[in-house]
Amino acid sequence: MTSPLDWIRQAAATREDAGLTRRLATTKHGDGLDLAGNDYLGLRTHPAVVAGAVAAAETYGGGAGASRLVTGTLDVHDELEAALAALTGAPSALVLSTGYAANLAVLTTLADAGTLVVSDEHAHASLIDGCRLSRAAVSVSRHNDLDHVAELLGRREAPRAVVVAESIYSVLGDAAPVEDLIALTAEAGAILVVDEAHALGVVGPGGGGLVAAAGQAGAEHVVVTATLSKSLAAQGGAVLASPDVREHLVNTARPFIYDTGLAPASAGAALAALGVLREHPELTARVHANAARLAGACGVEPPAGAVMSVEVRGPHEAVEAVETARAHGIRIGCFRPPSTPDGTSRLRLTAHADHGEHELDRACDVLAALTARG
Amino acid sequence: MTSPLDWIRQAAATREDAGLTRRLATTKHGDGLDLAGNDYLGLRTHPAVVAGAVAAAETYGGGAGASRLVTGTLDVHDELEAALAALTGAPSALVLSTGYAANLAVLTTLADAGTLVVSDEHAHASLIDGCRLSRAAVSVSRHNDLDHVAELLGRREAPRAVVVAESIYSVLGDAAPVEDLIALTAEAGAILVVDEAHALGVVGPGGGGLVAAAGQAGAEHVVVTATLSKSLAAQGGAVLASPDVREHLVNTARPFIYDTGLAPASAGAALAALGVLREHPELTARVHANAARLAGACGVEPPAGAVMSVEVRGPHEAVEAVETARAHGIRIGCFRPPSTPDGTSRLRLTAHADHGEHELDRACDVLAALTARG
Ligand SMILES: Cc1ncc(COP(=O)(O)O)c(C=O)c1O
Ligand SMILES: Cc1ncc(COP(=O)(O)O)c(C=O)c1O
Repeated sequence: MTSPLDWIRQAAATREDAGLTRRLATTKHGDGLDLAGNDYLGLRTHPAVVAGAVAAAETYGGGAGASRLVTGTLDVHDELEAALAALTGAPSALVLSTGYAANLAVLTTLADAGTLVVSDEHAHASLIDGCRLSRAAVSVSRHNDLDHVAELLGRREAPRAVVVAESIYSVLGDAAPVEDLIALTAEAGAILVVDEAHALGVVGPGGGGLVAAAGQAGAEHVVVTATLSKSLAAQGGAVLASPDVREHLVNTARPFIYDTGLAPASAGAALAALGVLREHPELTARVHANAARLAGACGVEPPAGAVMSVEVRGPHEAVEAVETARAHGIRIGCFRPPSTPDGTSRLRLTAHADHGEHELDRACDVLAALTARG
Repeated sequence: MTSPLDWIRQAAATREDAGLTRRLATTKHGDGLDLAGNDYLGLRTHPAVVAGAVAAAETYGGGAGASRLVTGTLDVHDELEAALAALTGAPSALVLSTGYAANLAVLTTLADAGTLVVSDEHAHASLIDGCRLSRAAVSVSRHNDLDHVAELLGRREAPRAVVVAESIYSVLGDAAPVEDLIALTAEAGAILVVDEAHALGVVGPGGGGLVAAAGQAGAEHVVVTATLSKSLAAQGGAVLASPDVREHLVNTARPFIYDTGLAPASAGAALAALGVLREHPELTARVHANAARLAGACGVEPPAGAVMSVEVRGPHEAVEAVETARAHGIRIGCFRPPSTPDGTSRLRLTAHADHGEHELDRACDVLAALTARG
């Protein structure tokens, strides 16, 4: 008898034969220096951040208990929104349950069948899924190619247009020409959606991101999305935009309306991380210094933010490098097709503000040997 | 000059004129008895649940720091998956960041352009969004109408089929004919996706849900989704299914792969809630007893789970009832078009295991007056 799972098992066998099966491995205490995760400011286990999570759980309980629109909006959400707006200079902020949900919410409500979306070819899966869900016509622009964006916008027949970019890209770690994109979209009468997931806390004034660095945090056609799960050491997502966009999301965004509010402990942790960043603006400089050292060891340019990307010959070399590094007590990530936007296999390394001299020295030795060989 | 936000402002004005603007209101301590949220077992502020959140934050920090596939899988995720599988009898469990993400993950990976999806007309927004994202052909079946499901499946030309239902529906609170759906899909060679968001912890053996109640937790063509944000008093989502489906999700589900792992405190809170439920199976009976009392006061039948629905004349009456209840110290919810699956305005009330005799008496008096008048 055939089973409706037969095709799943066939797909698994094909994956296995190609050496592309992904397996979950549990990270244990003492598993090595983390150059793979996104805790850029090193705040995940910072006493103030843990205390923020603990206090919120004690005050509000384990969960928000309902949608933000029912009884699930708590003081800690309001405080977090105010602090996010203050960091980025945005006129208002809306907190959602994840960064993924923030991107779905923004794209499904700012774009529709009457919208042309011009999306950078390196855009994150959550941005791509948001575009798909929106039913907009999507044109993919060449990575960081302003002329191409302008050309695609120029061909538009749809009444509305939205341009999609990340300010620091998650895979390559390079920065978008944010200031130019803001000017170009203003001129074209388009909305610009900028995902600052990997920029918040790491670049811009006080870690406020690249839209803030461009002095455009108040521009009403710019909609910033962010996550609380990377530099802010917690979980959750946020949209930083004009109050009109915020109200539009509250009223129409299904991933906001039909989703439980962010857990108090996550909101409390992110709020505390924002406080630590405010009191220790030198953390962002430390990320950059550590990133420059790691980049040097790998023979690549210092990255725009915390993420760096090192090309390797093929998927097998990538996996081998990850395993060798691990054997030497260092956790690094890799991207292999089909997860890379351009078909190249890459190591992905991230700098963290809390890594000390000594452990970085050791990591640089390992990485230098690894990447010279690769 | 026109702004790309003009249409958003026009939509806001139209909403305002129709009296349909939604506004966020912060829930304050002492805001009244909560008959609106989804904390059915009343565990959100249970000492053990808070302690679970606190311990996990202290052990692992504020966030998971990375995707589950990179360095974001922690012991607490493994423990939570084991406990969820134990509760439901499922052969394996996968934890995601939200229930919304769980539904997106399941539908985008079990259905594709070569799949017919037959989805109940009352299915939750997250199930609908998952269907849309999957690119499958979607046929909407009349609510809880097995013959219609069979008819739509019979007309199928696509090589594969998926049937989508909730075991207890989020708006009406009624139960699906889960046992019959399992048999029907088995016969048709289809996969059955059952969202037990409002069933887990409330119905079935030990609160294990309606698939467990049907004795079919091990059926390989049945894929259960759930949330940790309702009875389990935390945040997060889960998929309960065969190990082959789990592996398929780990390898192909974008809302799992490209999303940060669930925050430790949320995982710890849900794990602790599962422990409380295991030690106090009488909690589910208490939900039903409280639900029966509230239903009696409102003049409706006792619900299948914790959620009950009371029809009112129109959207204005619904809002008025919510406000009157609130003035009497009781929080209830309402659904108005376009949020109701059938165009009817409704009050939505939820029973909670932790509500005491005295406060329920008072609530019943208020509700009886309110619904008699309505
Ligand atoms: C660019 C980008 N946007 C959004 C997300 C999703 O954020 P979250 O993990 O908070 O859902 C990620 C990664 O997780 C990301 O890299
Ligand atoms: C039936 C149903 N499925 C899924 C969800 C989404 O769960 P979560 O809030 O954990 O994202 C909800 C409500 O929030 C729901 O009512």
